[in-house]
Amino acid sequence: MRIKLYFFGKKNEINDFEKEMIRRIGFRCPIEIIPIAQAGVSGSDNAKKLEAEKLLSKISDQEFLIAFDENGKTMDSLEFSKKLKQWFINHGDVTFVIGGAHGIDQKVLSRANLLFSFGSMVWTRNLFRSMALEQIYRALEIEGGGNFHKE
Amino acid sequence: MRIKLYFFGKKNEINDFEKEMIRRIGFRCPIEIIPIAQAGVSGSDNAKKLEAEKLLSKISDQEFLIAFDENGKTMDSLEFSKKLKQWFINHGDVTFVIGGAHGIDQKVLSRANLLFSFGSMVWTRNLFRSMALEQIYRALEIEGGGNFHKE
Repeated sequence: MRIKLYFFGKKNEINDFEKEMIRRIGFRCPIEIIPIAQAGVSGSDNAKKLEAEKLLSKISDQEFLIAFDENGKTMDSLEFSKKLKQWFINHGDVTFVIGGAHGIDQKVLSRANLLFSFGSMVWTRNLFRSMALEQIYRALEIEGGGNFHKE
Repeated sequence: MRIKLYFFGKKNEINDFEKEMIRRIGFRCPIEIIPIAQAGVSGSDNAKKLEAEKLLSKISDQEFLIAFDENGKTMDSLEFSKKLKQWFINHGDVTFVIGGAHGIDQKVLSRANLLFSFGSMVWTRNLFRSMALEQIYRALEIEGGGNFHKE
């Protein structure tokens, strides 16, 4: 079992909170955070398309891919924890992807095995990465019986 | 029109992202971020009760109070922007409160004019403060016609 998290941006955008989450997640499960350079083209559709190609060239056909999308499935933290465990059992590894500044291309949404939403609000991609890492850590803590999660 | 945001914790917990959000919000609307010391007692119910008393002693009867609560009303970012504008028109100032490490006491929930939720997941209070500031800034940008918010 292993987690990969792709995002569009640069490694140096990862802040101290995220580094701490990554460190703590690492005690429970190997995790790799993989930046993909944002497409430097004008037009959000073009950028999204180029970013999608770069991402999809890195994803194997067997990979269980979860794309964050505001129209995706919402879950509470306990439900996500249960699902994550199930995905590890069924698929071994789990790959997440967070969209870039212009959102996420339809090609990625179509390839994804699941679209996952934290609710109907729009978030900046950097803050969203903090949120995703916090929920992944929380899910592992719930499953592993840690005291991070309080009801 | 003025925004106040109360949280339980220390001023030095406010990180660089939040400082930047506060700075940008300030161009559109005066905002005050007010820390309330967390209750140093054992037992989460006792802590919540003490924290509630400290908070409520600072809130006037006329103040329009919005408490973040996972069981509150959810909105998307556009809806929140419209509501925020309406609250400024109807009430002048708007006060938000984010619960402490043990959540938020029933007394505060009862006093609040609105319970507001970002969705059903549980978040750490520090990350939640970043999220709240981002959504407040986004709401003001949407209303003011800035280019921060992209659909």
